[in-house]
Amino acid sequence: MSSRAPTVGGGAGSAPFQVGLLGHGTVGGAFAVLLEERAAEIERFNGRRPVISGVLTRTQGDFEQILSDADLLVELIGGIEPAREYLLTAMRAGKDVVSANKQLLSQHGEELFETAREYGVRLRFEAAVAGVVPVVRVLEESLSATPIERIHGIVNGTTNFMLSEMAHGSSYAQALAEAQRRGFAEADPSDDVSGRDAAAKMAILARLAFGTPVHLNDVRYEGIEHLHVDDLEYARELGLGLKLLGTAERRQGGLSVRVHPAFLYSGHPLASVSGPFNAVTVESEAITEITMSGPGAGGRQTASAVLGDVVSVMTGGARPPAPPLALRMVEDVENAFYLHLDVADRPGVLAAVMQVLGEHEVSIKSVVQRGMGERARLVMVTHSVIESTLRAAVERVGEFDFVRNTPRTICVIEEEFV
Amino acid sequence: MSSRAPTVGGGAGSAPFQVGLLGHGTVGGAFAVLLEERAAEIERFNGRRPVISGVLTRTQGDFEQILSDADLLVELIGGIEPAREYLLTAMRAGKDVVSANKQLLSQHGEELFETAREYGVRLRFEAAVAGVVPVVRVLEESLSATPIERIHGIVNGTTNFMLSEMAHGSSYAQALAEAQRRGFAEADPSDDVSGRDAAAKMAILARLAFGTPVHLNDVRYEGIEHLHVDDLEYARELGLGLKLLGTAERRQGGLSVRVHPAFLYSGHPLASVSGPFNAVTVESEAITEITMSGPGAGGRQTASAVLGDVVSVMTGGARPPAPPLALRMVEDVENAFYLHLDVADRPGVLAAVMQVLGEHEVSIKSVVQRGMGERARLVMVTHSVIESTLRAAVERVGEFDFVRNTPRTICVIEEEFV
Repeated sequence: MSSRAPTVGGGAGSAPFQVGLLGHGTVGGAFAVLLEERAAEIERFNGRRPVISGVLTRTQGDFEQILSDADLLVELIGGIEPAREYLLTAMRAGKDVVSANKQLLSQHGEELFETAREYGVRLRFEAAVAGVVPVVRVLEESLSATPIERIHGIVNGTTNFMLSEMAHGSSYAQALAEAQRRGFAEADPSDDVSGRDAAAKMAILARLAFGTPVHLNDVRYEGIEHLHVDDLEYARELGLGLKLLGTAERRQGGLSVRVHPAFLYSGHPLASVSGPFNAVTVESEAITEITMSGPGAGGRQTASAVLGDVVSVMTGGARPPAPPLALRMVEDVENAFYLHLDVADRPGVLAAVMQVLGEHEVSIKSVVQRGMGERARLVMVTHSVIESTLRAAVERVGEFDFVRNTPRTICVIEEEFV
Repeated sequence: MSSRAPTVGGGAGSAPFQVGLLGHGTVGGAFAVLLEERAAEIERFNGRRPVISGVLTRTQGDFEQILSDADLLVELIGGIEPAREYLLTAMRAGKDVVSANKQLLSQHGEELFETAREYGVRLRFEAAVAGVVPVVRVLEESLSATPIERIHGIVNGTTNFMLSEMAHGSSYAQALAEAQRRGFAEADPSDDVSGRDAAAKMAILARLAFGTPVHLNDVRYEGIEHLHVDDLEYARELGLGLKLLGTAERRQGGLSVRVHPAFLYSGHPLASVSGPFNAVTVESEAITEITMSGPGAGGRQTASAVLGDVVSVMTGGARPPAPPLALRMVEDVENAFYLHLDVADRPGVLAAVMQVLGEHEVSIKSVVQRGMGERARLVMVTHSVIESTLRAAVERVGEFDFVRNTPRTICVIEEEFV
């Protein structure tokens, strides 16, 4: 051993590292337990022992006092206010902060980042996206010098669990009930199944990966409520994965960020991610691709990500995102699509549909008729087409009297390289 | 924008960040190109522009001069000496260092870590393990407060590519030739196919995950040279992945680190990793598991990991590993095994084999006879058994005159949880 002093703060007898905790729900409670369990090991690494120096709940604790005692504030309240005001106040007082608040970061991220830069403090938020999967840190640090082309993410464990259940034959209602029974879905699941939760997370990831402010409102999202057992059957037969996919990518000189169901070819790194898991693939010419996956939720898992942030503040490093660039947001992008039509089983139907698609220059890669009589369906896959063009064509197709239900379209992610 | 000074060093007009480069082969050359490409973006983030201030090759450059000019030294020479001496000298001169040298870190890691601690400098080595997959950083930082139970890794892209080829029917020789043709294998592939390269990487990962010094010599390894087309056929039929698997795990109160071929159940996160990829799964009660995967090699990919380390030094953070703990190394661990016997096809053979296994208390989960006459084989899977016990039993079985070749055993990783 060296005879010199340790290089990391203090050593034996150093003052504890005071953590003020805002919120003491599932994650907050699990965080307090985990911090106590790991305090000795963290002290061994960092020279200071972390302790909870104050807890604010709805009914107890004084924010000003907690703030003044703390070296760092952990915000696990959720929602916009008062979480936003607490974080801004803490940073203006020169305190480092850790948050798991995806709503806040996806709607007021620039204000928070700017405040962190202005006051020279750290703002960490690993737990806001993808559970324990350390995608925030990897984007902020390992890949900060890498020009990223695209991020694909399964960033909502609830819907991924439901889609896995549906792939094994459950109906949407059964899958939702099972998710609720196992604690993967809230009593009101609308933020999850509508795609809004995933959209908030993709907004945060897109900001980190592309340096451009992305507000939740910039993310077009579509959920899984309209998926049909037929779609999952189609995926199963062709060995495709049907996932609620978040995408953030450079397109047409700008940036497209969106969430929608998508068929993934079987070799795609996300196609085999099933159950209540999260996974993110980052693509760049310089690195080809990296995929990270892990459980999407759970109080203890989220608490573990929060504690990792606390430790990273203790060890130094980790700057706020650089001042923003301004890539234009691109809404209307090109993709291949699956198109599902319930049709009357009579002559001339296919010809009529094909003619409308042709007039819109939607080119078809494959078409099959399935079922007969009352159950007849046309399932098509298009070549790559601008989405608005496809939607205009499909709207006209939907007007035919032989089309018995609203046509369904789902994005298809095809293999790009071997 | 804030009216205050930027919080990150300097701003416009700051002195460049001087990077001394040791070695200018495939990775060194790619690194110099990538650094130049990304210098402006890195400056935008960090306030200082990185530049190569000197290059040392076999034929040119002066180490002392390069060291004295540099803010940070990047070592891409490989091998033990003179890389070790250069890194030690640089750290003793108070310089931060980045290395991609797995040989050096797996054989002289403690000396390097101790020197980094003593002189208060940073030693980063993301590129030494798993290509662009940021497993070093995730272990050192995100998971530094997480008690890790086990790491499983596919950490050699060459052999993973070869096994993928063999799974599609190639012979070992064909797979090797194809790997060489595509540039995934060296002319002398022995470090890869023997498992020694993977063993060095697992030694480094084990040190980070478990805090205990692990020397390459502590890692028992077995390569893929003895695998037979029968074994891959067995894997294919049962939907198992056959991988060259690195394992580092707590066992019997100590630490076991090893590399060997293993059958993985189809749901294992590493079972579907094919081609020249690397992937690592980290298991812990607090996080369940995280899996990270990406391409295992390539000059530009490795250079990208090196550049990520340079940027992390520029942004601060990242301490050397804490002083070591001392977990006992455990060599003899329990596993299920696949056992393959070429036997003469005559009565009494199975009974004789089962009797010997029974005497050694090796309990058999399944047994099938395959082929007939000259091609008769017994394929068995055992229940969990201490490896030395299995090997003793198999040695006795191998003495029977009806056993026509050395029996083959391969570890089987079974599902542990749903």
